[in-house]
Amino acid sequence: MSEPTRLSWTDVRDQIRARILSRTYAPGDRLPRDEDIAQEFGCARTTVHRAMQDLAQMGLVERKRKGGTHVLSDPVTRATFDIPITRCEVEQRGAKYDYQLISRALEQTPTGVMARFGLHTPREMLRVKALHLADNRPYVFEDRWVDTQSTPEILDVDLTRENANEWLVHNKPFSRVDVRFSAMNATADNAHHLDTPEGSALFVIERTTWIGSAPITTVQSLAAPGYQLAANTG
Amino acid sequence: MSEPTRLSWTDVRDQIRARILSRTYAPGDRLPRDEDIAQEFGCARTTVHRAMQDLAQMGLVERKRKGGTHVLSDPVTRATFDIPITRCEVEQRGAKYDYQLISRALEQTPTGVMARFGLHTPREMLRVKALHLADNRPYVFEDRWVDTQSTPEILDVDLTRENANEWLVHNKPFSRVDVRFSAMNATADNAHHLDTPEGSALFVIERTTWIGSAPITTVQSLAAPGYQLAANTG
Repeated sequence: MSEPTRLSWTDVRDQIRARILSRTYAPGDRLPRDEDIAQEFGCARTTVHRAMQDLAQMGLVERKRKGGTHVLSDPVTRATFDIPITRCEVEQRGAKYDYQLISRALEQTPTGVMARFGLHTPREMLRVKALHLADNRPYVFEDRWVDTQSTPEILDVDLTRENANEWLVHNKPFSRVDVRFSAMNATADNAHHLDTPEGSALFVIERTTWIGSAPITTVQSLAAPGYQLAANTG
Repeated sequence: MSEPTRLSWTDVRDQIRARILSRTYAPGDRLPRDEDIAQEFGCARTTVHRAMQDLAQMGLVERKRKGGTHVLSDPVTRATFDIPITRCEVEQRGAKYDYQLISRALEQTPTGVMARFGLHTPREMLRVKALHLADNRPYVFEDRWVDTQSTPEILDVDLTRENANEWLVHNKPFSRVDVRFSAMNATADNAHHLDTPEGSALFVIERTTWIGSAPITTVQSLAAPGYQLAANTG
């Protein structure tokens, strides 16, 4: 006589998912406890835990520390993106990386930049415009503001040689980050830097960081046409 | 005499991060085991575990089941996005949702669609074009392909009344999803549907699902100008 086959965590996940889709567990319902599910399936509790993590990752259920596991009313697709240092991204594509400083100046923050940081009054910050190149072609144009109150050291960095993106990632810890994606038509200025026709559709990554409540930096990165960002899978 | 203050997981995280930034733990290094760090800080192992999860989430370290924790050579920003059912997204914005079926036809898959699925030969699929509206304004135009081999039930769905997005999410489990973001200039056709000038920069979400190795659906969602997608925070 053969023993019953041990269920893997993917088996458990698929069975729970089938119950969610068939409304055995309906939207908003609380699922049985991990240990009860483990007992039902005759598997380890850690197997159920792994299955539930995946279902949460997929956006089908929500896990709360004390409140157990609930079926989400409307499932979402949860997608995770890694946004690397631009130099690394270029090199990962097997291309040669180059960097050009375009401008560097102390300026008063306009309202759009204040809004990104949640500031109510304008403040003087260091504005740095720079171009990242892949195989001598424009890859990303960045328009960055660095708060010189939280980050006075930036004023001593030679930004003609060292890029602000990399310097900040390596030297400036942050406690909060806001990331937004959108699309915009290239203005005459950034079309010029990206060597693309004015009006081209550009993929925009906006990234803002704080340490505590103090702003560190906000950057608008405009990718050259053709850029595509793929979510991590698994 | 007062007892020493108990470290919280955020304290532990900040101290480990400071060591990574100061190169006490250099890029590529393996960190001490959780239990050794716990002993050093005089805290629970679960506290270290929570801190490490956050550092991994931030893209500073990489955790492997058996291989321990390593400092990533080049930190990345890890951003997680929830892509809800479009109706839910519209309603979450407090707007009235509407839906219009534009067309529905059996068509041979063109090469771009074959590439998204990883297919080598064309196949007949159901192509569904539809418009999602928010407060009577175009919100997202979707151009979708549904594989009728894996999903023959779609042929019986009344797509003038029920939208394919929601029907699939609620009825069709998938085991793999691919999500990509990009930007494109509106063609005459989609500019017409989105009521925007031809050439407008559109934010594009491409989402493809499979069950096992069988294609289910691939959709290109074009958002009306002004659309912005923000990452989850915390």
